[in-house]
Amino acid sequence: MAGAEIENLVKLLARLPGLGPRSARRAVLQMMRRRESLLDPLSEALMVARDKIVNCTSCGNIDTLSPCTICADSRRDPSVLCVVEDVGDLWALERAQAVKGRYHVLGGTLSALDGIGPDDLNLSGLKQRCADDAVKEIILATNATVEGQTTAHVITDMLSDLDVTITRLAHGVPVGGELDYLDDGTLLAAMKSRR
Amino acid sequence: MAGAEIENLVKLLARLPGLGPRSARRAVLQMMRRRESLLDPLSEALMVARDKIVNCTSCGNIDTLSPCTICADSRRDPSVLCVVEDVGDLWALERAQAVKGRYHVLGGTLSALDGIGPDDLNLSGLKQRCADDAVKEIILATNATVEGQTTAHVITDMLSDLDVTITRLAHGVPVGGELDYLDDGTLLAAMKSRR
Repeated sequence: MAGAEIENLVKLLARLPGLGPRSARRAVLQMMRRRESLLDPLSEALMVARDKIVNCTSCGNIDTLSPCTICADSRRDPSVLCVVEDVGDLWALERAQAVKGRYHVLGGTLSALDGIGPDDLNLSGLKQRCADDAVKEIILATNATVEGQTTAHVITDMLSDLDVTITRLAHGVPVGGELDYLDDGTLLAAMKSRR
Repeated sequence: MAGAEIENLVKLLARLPGLGPRSARRAVLQMMRRRESLLDPLSEALMVARDKIVNCTSCGNIDTLSPCTICADSRRDPSVLCVVEDVGDLWALERAQAVKGRYHVLGGTLSALDGIGPDDLNLSGLKQRCADDAVKEIILATNATVEGQTTAHVITDMLSDLDVTITRLAHGVPVGGELDYLDDGTLLAAMKSRR
């Protein structure tokens, strides 16, 4: 096949989620075919990412600044803190413009099976922020999985001695969703929380 | 969402075949999570690719050298030239170690619909190589599509005045394939070329 440099690039690209060895090879060929419009800017963008992108020391978001743009934005409500599992969840909430306050990224969920305990998550930082800042409400926006819900419970316990309101995302029927395709748990939850 | 640099990286990654905006975001998050093992080496590998990888002036393969490793390999039979549509096909044949000779990459197929004529392919280079070198056999390994077969016909015509044997890949049942799933054209071809 081609030289060691190309093999190496294919191998690294194949480690990205969504790409396997075959699609990584196709990606490399595409880059070679479109050098000016793809290879050069992508190489540049990755160098910028490597040199400039850092994790925000306050919330754990990734950005070129620390504190990040969201933490530094004075127009955001400082009394609301939305706790998410990882940066992808933060982006999803930002796209939906669902949160007026700031975020706190845990960096994962508690998982006995994977050996992830409270010390592996950014929980101490959360407690400190709740105590330091003028935080009035904590929105626990962890995923609706067993691990996510367990983590939410542990955080609720941890913050029980602080004077903050702790809320959770509502369970229910997704907007545009069909009842026929929903699981029993969601339907029961939606029925229980009916308005 | 995140800064313009991250947005830009997501946008560029989403242009790769096999990745969309959502999987590009997941890829970026994965890179940020695994900086040492993924982001740094990938950035490095892309820089190397940008600076070092060139198209072989002889066959059109991509490599860090020109003439490429295959063209420069003196152990390969100089009398056999395998004509392929693009570098991906060359890699596939190399993985199968199906070709003992050298290659010639056309860079596409003739396609009236897409406005790709003979001048857009590396046909003049092919003719020159056939005349220059001690080439005895041309294997036309274009895809078994309408465009690929048309291109093969045109090349056959073009080289008809030269003293070379022109062969094509055999049609037939793929090894491990089930007859029930094959199309009629393949079955007829396999029956016709039965041995």
